[in-house]
Amino acid sequence: MQFTAQQIATLIQGRLEGNPHAKVSDVAKIEEAVSGSLCFIANPKYEEYLYVTKASIVIVNDSLELMQPVSATLIRVKDAYSGFAFLLEKYNEIISGNEKRGIEQPSYICTTATIGNNVYIGAFAYVGENVIIEDGVKIYPGAYIGNNVVVKENSKIYSGVKIYDECRLGCRVVIHSGSVIGGDGFGFAPLSDGTYKKIPQIGNVIIEDDVEIGVNTTIDRATMGSTIIRKGVKLDNLIQVAHNVEIGENTVIAAQTGISGSAKIGRNCVIGGQVGMVGHIHIADGTKINAQSGISKSVANPNITLNGSPAFEYKSSLKSQAIFRNLPELQQRLLKLEETVQELTALLSIQNLEYKK
Amino acid sequence: MQFTAQQIATLIQGRLEGNPHAKVSDVAKIEEAVSGSLCFIANPKYEEYLYVTKASIVIVNDSLELMQPVSATLIRVKDAYSGFAFLLEKYNEIISGNEKRGIEQPSYICTTATIGNNVYIGAFAYVGENVIIEDGVKIYPGAYIGNNVVVKENSKIYSGVKIYDECRLGCRVVIHSGSVIGGDGFGFAPLSDGTYKKIPQIGNVIIEDDVEIGVNTTIDRATMGSTIIRKGVKLDNLIQVAHNVEIGENTVIAAQTGISGSAKIGRNCVIGGQVGMVGHIHIADGTKINAQSGISKSVANPNITLNGSPAFEYKSSLKSQAIFRNLPELQQRLLKLEETVQELTALLSIQNLEYKK
Amino acid sequence: MQFTAQQIATLIQGRLEGNPHAKVSDVAKIEEAVSGSLCFIANPKYEEYLYVTKASIVIVNDSLELMQPVSATLIRVKDAYSGFAFLLEKYNEIISGNEKRGIEQPSYICTTATIGNNVYIGAFAYVGENVIIEDGVKIYPGAYIGNNVVVKENSKIYSGVKIYDECRLGCRVVIHSGSVIGGDGFGFAPLSDGTYKKIPQIGNVIIEDDVEIGVNTTIDRATMGSTIIRKGVKLDNLIQVAHNVEIGENTVIAAQTGISGSAKIGRNCVIGGQVGMVGHIHIADGTKINAQSGISKSVANPNITLNGSPAFEYKSSLKSQAIFRNLPELQQRLLKLEETVQELTALLSIQNLEYKK
Repeated sequence: MQFTAQQIATLIQGRLEGNPHAKVSDVAKIEEAVSGSLCFIANPKYEEYLYVTKASIVIVNDSLELMQPVSATLIRVKDAYSGFAFLLEKYNEIISGNEKRGIEQPSYICTTATIGNNVYIGAFAYVGENVIIEDGVKIYPGAYIGNNVVVKENSKIYSGVKIYDECRLGCRVVIHSGSVIGGDGFGFAPLSDGTYKKIPQIGNVIIEDDVEIGVNTTIDRATMGSTIIRKGVKLDNLIQVAHNVEIGENTVIAAQTGISGSAKIGRNCVIGGQVGMVGHIHIADGTKINAQSGISKSVANPNITLNGSPAFEYKSSLKSQAIFRNLPELQQRLLKLEETVQELTALLSIQNLEYKK
Repeated sequence: MQFTAQQIATLIQGRLEGNPHAKVSDVAKIEEAVSGSLCFIANPKYEEYLYVTKASIVIVNDSLELMQPVSATLIRVKDAYSGFAFLLEKYNEIISGNEKRGIEQPSYICTTATIGNNVYIGAFAYVGENVIIEDGVKIYPGAYIGNNVVVKENSKIYSGVKIYDECRLGCRVVIHSGSVIGGDGFGFAPLSDGTYKKIPQIGNVIIEDDVEIGVNTTIDRATMGSTIIRKGVKLDNLIQVAHNVEIGENTVIAAQTGISGSAKIGRNCVIGGQVGMVGHIHIADGTKINAQSGISKSVANPNITLNGSPAFEYKSSLKSQAIFRNLPELQQRLLKLEETVQELTALLSIQNLEYKK
Repeated sequence: MQFTAQQIATLIQGRLEGNPHAKVSDVAKIEEAVSGSLCFIANPKYEEYLYVTKASIVIVNDSLELMQPVSATLIRVKDAYSGFAFLLEKYNEIISGNEKRGIEQPSYICTTATIGNNVYIGAFAYVGENVIIEDGVKIYPGAYIGNNVVVKENSKIYSGVKIYDECRLGCRVVIHSGSVIGGDGFGFAPLSDGTYKKIPQIGNVIIEDDVEIGVNTTIDRATMGSTIIRKGVKLDNLIQVAHNVEIGENTVIAAQTGISGSAKIGRNCVIGGQVGMVGHIHIADGTKINAQSGISKSVANPNITLNGSPAFEYKSSLKSQAIFRNLPELQQRLLKLEETVQELTALLSIQNLEYKK
């Protein structure tokens, strides 16, 4: 699907500056935009990007004064951010207008379950004993809701999601297909004969309001107590969250990252893809972690950026990585130096001998 | 299941040379074969492996002249590759002869869906509004096909696959259990209060002909436009393909690799397992990427092999990795050199002093 | 859920020493315990941890003599390990007392299937042709059991698990939601035109007794023969096990690790999360592999610990990683040395000249 500058300007009642036929098929940050991207600039500190961006359309504040020529088509509105947010709302409305209501058959709903109003329960969905499904919740076909689970208002459980017994979901939680909430934590006690005895995992998972969880992500229940995903957290696909982990408000984690047992992650962290984190550590608020990093110890100070496996401070890490690349040259230089020093030593010995004569 | 050289020779009408009772339970490349492997050599440049392989049976061209003794049992046919391909066909026939047909009950098929001939739709499968299922398609139990999805001829959707609305699959596409096609891309706009606003993901996923996708792999829909998997691509298990990615024809990707948003991968690439790739980059045709590599920038020249995280050219990378292993020794040498140079400096100062006296 | 020291002491008939109101919500190893943890010490070599642990409650042998003061509340029983195991049993009993029995409707069970006594088969579960389900097996809603599969006594197949045709599961096997057993191995023969031909995957998966498999893990069927998971193996979530792999008895593997085709892993190995392993290698019994390691060759000697990517011996690897971190400093030292040596060389040349005058 593509939209023209003219269509967008009309929708958000903006003033068009540039090519009205410019087309976008993607939404991007101004600093990452490519041809075909729609962006917005609300914060003046991003204005510098306006003159170099490859974005096709940028929504800007009406008050913006251009310092240089701009290649993108601009759409001016009173408040660029509100304009952009309004655009998103419009899309969301169109999409949710098509959404389903009612209970499809065959589905399996235990008589002890409580089902709110305006709910959608798809065919082959399973709702266990004493489950509470609040108003406006959507449960897509083939989803499984275990006993005693609570799903609060307007949450959306996509097809094939599995939620084990006792877990609790807040309002407006979205869980995409194939994700599993509340599977047993990985806890086994080693016995003297080399076998393992299962440690019962009798806790649950609590997911607070406005959390969105991607596809095929796994969040294990606590051994005892709760694994907790705080308000506003966004998890991508194929992420592993082990037992007793806590992820702080508004933290964002990219795909295939794994968080080991009992790790506590602060608020507003931004964690890249394929990151690994050992158990029982604390990550301070606002920590940023680069993709593929391995976090082997706690991060005490907030707002630090980490990189590498094992990870350390981002800029130092980049330096080490650059030198790693040149290790063969470095080794060569060391070798040459050794030779030179050996020659010098030899020479000096002779001199010394001669000198002492 | 095991097969003897005699059985295979009979099946492909080949001439047996060596032990007719030799058994195989595996198919392998000649350079990777172990005892119990069946191989073939069609290309003369691989003949050298014939004399060192541990394979139990090798299918070769009738015309091949042996230069040294061979431990494997040989089966000679006019054209070794055709013989091997014929063998695979035979297996496939046996397997597909057992496949199911018809529509099992209970299944859920919207009345607006169009279902072709010779289709299998398993129990608990869900087929949404306006879906088009072409001839010969198999949809296994518990699969979910969202609204407006198209599945072309002879594709096979295994049990528990979820395909979100609007996605399009070509002919002979195979998707294994638990994979999810068209989940929302991971797009959230950060707001000034630290929370995130969801960017609607209104694009889709297009999967072209002859693509095979492994188990529990996730391919996200585009923000706008399409995430595209080109003809003949083969994806292994647990792979993450983010929104707006494009993977070129006949590219092969091993398990647990992750491709970030808007990356464009060329044709005929071979990408190992657990590779990570940042977004918005272009990977040239024929690029080979070693397992666990991290690709942080575009690859402009075709047919290059990369390794490491961050990745660079394969052979250089191996050298750096080898030196990394010896870093303690290297550091020791540096330390010793520093001491020697300090001694030399001291000595030279004394000499100089004495000399100048 | 929380338990007090008093409650636990009563349950295991132990003698309480310290605060009877101390609470625990977690079970941990003594060396990893935090406040709120319950631990036990059976082996005297762990006694040293008793004096520094932050655990709230520790179960110890009655015979233990304290050498220093202890902050944790102690519960003394004749045999600490048995007491702990008894506690776990009690939990398990409570949990399994709540488990379901019988066959829910609608489910789909082929008439050729054999179903034992005391079985639970949830709604929307699918049981294929000639399947054998032994006594006490539980198959949760929406699970799929392909043709000719055998599931032996008291195994538990959670919601949404998919088991492909021909696979065989032992007694007391537990498979958590979303895991897929027996998907096709990733085998494709490259053709001269750049396309790939599928190599039929006609083997199966054998899972022996007492194996537990986490959520969304994938175990591919063998090309021919069997992929084998030996007795007592414990696999975490999102693990990839490729075709023809064999994992030895009582080996434990953490989340997101990937094992490539035909690798053979020994007994009693402990493998961390996000580890990658190339194919066709052998890993000796008792090998320990650190998280995020990359194993590129066989491990011949047992009980070695490995780290890094590519991995080598743990302690050496830590040294190399420490120096990696200081590479910028090392490079600086090398540079300084080069300058000094150059000065020395120059000085020596002059001297030499003067000396020779």
